[in-house]
This record gives sequence, C-alpha cells and structure tokens, in this order.
Amino acid sequence: MSAANHKLLITMGDVCGIGPEIAVAAWAAEQQADLCLVGDVSVLRRALVQAGLTLPLAQLESVDELAQVPPHCLPVWQPSGLPADLLHCQQGRIDARAGAAAALCIEAAVREIQAGRAGGLVTAPLHKEALHAAGVSHPGHTEMLQALAAEPGAAPPPVRMMLANNELRTVLVTIHVSLRRAIEMLNTELILETLRISDAALRRVGIARPRIAVAGLNPHAGEGGLFGDEELQIIAPAIRQAQAEGIAASGPYAPDTVFMRARDAAGHPGEFDVVVAMTHDHGLIPVKYLGVEEGVNVTLGLPFVRTSPDHGTAFDIAGSGRADPASMRVAIAMARRLLPR
Amino acid sequence: MSAANHKLLITMGDVCGIGPEIAVAAWAAEQQADLCLVGDVSVLRRALVQAGLTLPLAQLESVDELAQVPPHCLPVWQPSGLPADLLHCQQGRIDARAGAAAALCIEAAVREIQAGRAGGLVTAPLHKEALHAAGVSHPGHTEMLQALAAEPGAAPPPVRMMLANNELRTVLVTIHVSLRRAIEMLNTELILETLRISDAALRRVGIARPRIAVAGLNPHAGEGGLFGDEELQIIAPAIRQAQAEGIAASGPYAPDTVFMRARDAAGHPGEFDVVVAMTHDHGLIPVKYLGVEEGVNVTLGLPFVRTSPDHGTAFDIAGSGRADPASMRVAIAMARRLLPR
Repeated sequence: MSAANHKLLITMGDVCGIGPEIAVAAWAAEQQADLCLVGDVSVLRRALVQAGLTLPLAQLESVDELAQVPPHCLPVWQPSGLPADLLHCQQGRIDARAGAAAALCIEAAVREIQAGRAGGLVTAPLHKEALHAAGVSHPGHTEMLQALAAEPGAAPPPVRMMLANNELRTVLVTIHVSLRRAIEMLNTELILETLRISDAALRRVGIARPRIAVAGLNPHAGEGGLFGDEELQIIAPAIRQAQAEGIAASGPYAPDTVFMRARDAAGHPGEFDVVVAMTHDHGLIPVKYLGVEEGVNVTLGLPFVRTSPDHGTAFDIAGSGRADPASMRVAIAMARRLLPR
Repeated sequence: MSAANHKLLITMGDVCGIGPEIAVAAWAAEQQADLCLVGDVSVLRRALVQAGLTLPLAQLESVDELAQVPPHCLPVWQPSGLPADLLHCQQGRIDARAGAAAALCIEAAVREIQAGRAGGLVTAPLHKEALHAAGVSHPGHTEMLQALAAEPGAAPPPVRMMLANNELRTVLVTIHVSLRRAIEMLNTELILETLRISDAALRRVGIARPRIAVAGLNPHAGEGGLFGDEELQIIAPAIRQAQAEGIAASGPYAPDTVFMRARDAAGHPGEFDVVVAMTHDHGLIPVKYLGVEEGVNVTLGLPFVRTSPDHGTAFDIAGSGRADPASMRVAIAMARRLLPR
C-alpha cells in the first residue's frame, strides 16, 4: 500500500449549492495534509469569501503536488474540461453547467484514485436534477461511482448506500428509484448481497460479528402475510441464507420499531449494529430525524473509500455563508477510518 | 351534552398480550371516576396480580353504575358473550379466543358510547393475527371502529390514524395494507380528505391554523418526476385544493427530511404542526424512533373520541408485570383533552 493511498480527494459538488462552501470550510477547520479539493478554482475562491475565510489557494497541476503545498494554503486540483463560465451559474438554481461540472470532478477524482494518486473520495452534495439536465444518466453519486468503478468489460460491482450518525447505521437495498419500482426490484439475491456487503463493511471498521437487523417492507413486516408477502417470500429466505453463511442477520422486523430498537444512545443501548432497509425512506427517515449535522453517507462495495455528508445542496442558503460544514467533517473523519492501513 | 359523555371506556385488548396489565396499571395510577374498564373480570383480576396491584375489583352490571363504585376499587364492565375460557389462553401466543374477546369488548364499548352511556374509548392493544384467527374481517382497531361508527344504511365515515408524541404528530393516508396496495390506493381525493380531517382535528385541540406538511411518496418527493410521478399527479393537486379551501397545507416534501423539520423539541422549533404521510411506516418510523413510551394513537373522523397507546401487545413480556403503562396514560390524557366540553 503506497502512501498516496491515504490522500482523500474532496469534490466540490454542485456549484449552485452549498458544496463549495462546506468543502473549503471543512478543509479550513482541518488543514490536514491528506486532503485535496477537486473543483473549479474560481468557484472555490468565491466559496472562501462566502464562507468568510481569508486563506490563500494553491492550484495544483497534479494531485501528486499535494505534499509541496505550504501550510494554511487551500490545495485545489482543477480537472481539465470544466465549463468556463461556472461563476455565471446562479446560486440556488438548477443549472446544467453545474451538473456537468459536478459529474466531471467526480469522474476525474475517481481516475486519480484508480491511478494510485489518492485513496478515497469525500463528495460534497450535487443536485440530481442538475445532473439530469446535464445529460448525466446516473441519478446520483452512488450509481455514478458504481459505473466508474467497473473493470473494463466487467459488470459494475454491487454497491450499497450506508447512512450513519452517532447512534444509528442503516444500509439501503434500493435507493434512487420510485417506490413502485423499488418494490418491483426487491428479490432474495439483492437482499442477500446487501447483507453480505453490510457484514463485510462493518467487520472492516472493527465490529467482530455485526448484528444486522433486516427491516420488512410492509406495515408490521406483513403481519404474517396479511399485509403483503414480500417478508415471507423474499426477505426471510435471504436472512436464512445469510445466517447459513455465518452472518448475524435477523428479522424481518416491523419497519416502524426496528430503528428505535437499533438506536444506540445514552441509556438506550442499541440491539443491532446496523439496520438493512428495503427502501430509501424507511432507512433515511430515522437516520435524519434528529438532524443531518452528524450524518454521513458511505458507499459500500466500491474498490475505494467514498463518503459524503448526509444532506443535499441546500439551494435556499447557498452562498450565504450559513452552511454548516459539520457533516462534511464527519464524512472526512469516516473516510480516514475506512482507508486500509 | 350529558355528563355521561365524559366517561372513558378502556378496553382490555388481547388477553394474551400486555393489554390487561397496562389497563389496570393505568387505572391504578389515575383512579379517576371517569374511567371504566371493559373486559373479562377473571382476566383483569389476574392482570392486577401480574401488575403487582392489590386493589379490589367491582363488577358493574352497567356502565351507568360507575358513579356508585367506591374509591380505590377497579371498575369493570364485562360485556355479555365473552368466551368462558379466556384464562386458558396462553399469554404470549396468538389465540383466536383472545382475538374474538378483544373484538367483542370494542363492539360492546362502542354500543355503550352510541347509547350515550360514555363519551370516548381508550383501547389497549390487540393482536391483528389473533383478530384474523377469530374471523374478524377488520385488520385493526381503526377499521373496526370505522365500521361500527357507520350510521345504518350509510357509508362508514372517513377516518384517519394520527400518531402523536410530545414532539411530532403524523396523520396517515394509508395504514394496514401492503405497501404495494397502499401505492395503488393513493388518489387526490383520499389525500385531500386526509388534509381536511387533519385540519379539523387540530383546530379542535386548539391550534388556530394548523401548519400541515405533506410528505411525498417517493425518494426526494420524486425529484421533479425522476423517481415517480405521484407527487406531481396526485399529491400536489390535493395540496392546491386544500389551500384553496383555506387549509395551511404545503409540500410535497421529501419524506426523509420533513419529519426532522416538523420535530418540535427544545432548541428545535418545529416548522409544522403535523405531517401527513402517504404510508404507515413513513409516518410511524419517526414518531416511534425516540421510543413509544409517550406515543399515542388517535383515530380522527369518528363521531366519538378514540385513543390508544402507540405500541403493540408485546407478547414477549406479557404477564411478567414489566409492561409500562405510560403510553396508556398518555392515551387517557389525550382522550380527555379531545372530549367535547
């Protein structure tokens, strides 16, 4: 493992949102030599001003120059091919140029990691509609990274989204599709794959035998088949197979109480280390309920580390300097923890 | 309004669960003259023992005798027709006799209310599979009460389930059906009716102009149609019509953040008075996340008051005396607040 693999690249996200501000603010709070921003130099200069920071900015020709950047100087690598007029994108609005730039930074960052010049990626938020307006076919980071991680000629690796805060972790079986489509997509293999990925990921962060709770799909986990049979036909067989493989999975549990049971807080020890949720919102409603300030999104299953803050572009406050970089900082800390040592 | 209308009937729920225990424990903690239990005398005597209470029990011939019950004496009205062998039902197991008894107590209690002998109903938990095993066609309390409340020859009144705790209220558009079926059931009229019922109910508890947030169905509320079109085709038109009627409804909001925004806690003023959720678990996951001890379930739209604790039969601890009557007591307090004065 080369030293380069411990560098983390921070992509600026959608320039119309709070991404650039929280990226520079998080860097300013950390000022660690393992962090390099990937984005547009002009936009990041403006972000420094909007975040109320008076730091110099060093534009790198290559991520390899990171070690030469003087202290207290924001290191930025600007990939070639960014739209020239990004400062003309109105903050707080959907702009195809911003979507294109966000996607390009991610692609460039992944190429740097694949070339061995960095070990992981922390991504500032992008806006899915801007991505769509830019003609990007992937609905979000997770799908884009999965496609970029595919070996030439091979299928993309199976990945899953994990959301974590200081009291709850949840891994999602389905993500950015309609609820109708999510239900159609569910099958035993997809759930079993999620259980395997979740188990492996939690072992890597030091949990010897992760206790994995599997949430049902239907109210009361189907109440014995009265309110839907996916629990009996699809979910329970996946749990049984995972158990046969030595994974400490259990369930399916009623979605409305399993997150409460997994919650690990003062005076309330969690019964599980992670909850596997069938749908985006079953998993994200509880993990966001107490606030997104400490939340972090981790993509499991990629050949490299990738984390991001657990919030969006916050168009309503973009450029105001009010954006809180706390979740971005938690994402950076989580990425460091996940890097192979 | 007669004085009788301020009496509250407490049904014992499923005798194999914690219902009888929490009903007697809540009564013992309150000992108010407006409360009368509806259930099996033998089961409730056992529940007193299991709850560690040494109170005498007074069996009433009629709810009208409540005023004659001496202080510190548990008043129980046993409706005729209960199965004779309820003490033989094993606690912690599904039993059709227990399901039949739970249903019969509810039916009898509603008849008492319809006859003017009581004003409201607080129901201890029943078990839906036991109800089903007993041949009861309704999947839960809400649907059963709706059917019982129908005027002869008329359609049942539209009702909705509201869950509330001390920081969040949520009203559900769909409840005890599979998630697939819930999506199929959604239409603009159903959502609009929910908004009207929610607005009226919150005005009755003293909120002058309830701020109603409407959660979307799909991830990110459909992200402008990318992940499902129910928000555009079904939900938004209902919100517009409600607004035209003077209801302060807004949305549709992303399900994963709207509950966080509505949460009303110390240092975190809620942006909304209630969140209308499209599915059972979108609404119940957040309201239960911090614990069900303070949660209460209110049926909106009935011609009488009905509340219940926000938890189930807890078969795993039934009969152990460990069940906490706190949520039952909150349900009683909420029912008193909702009674017409």
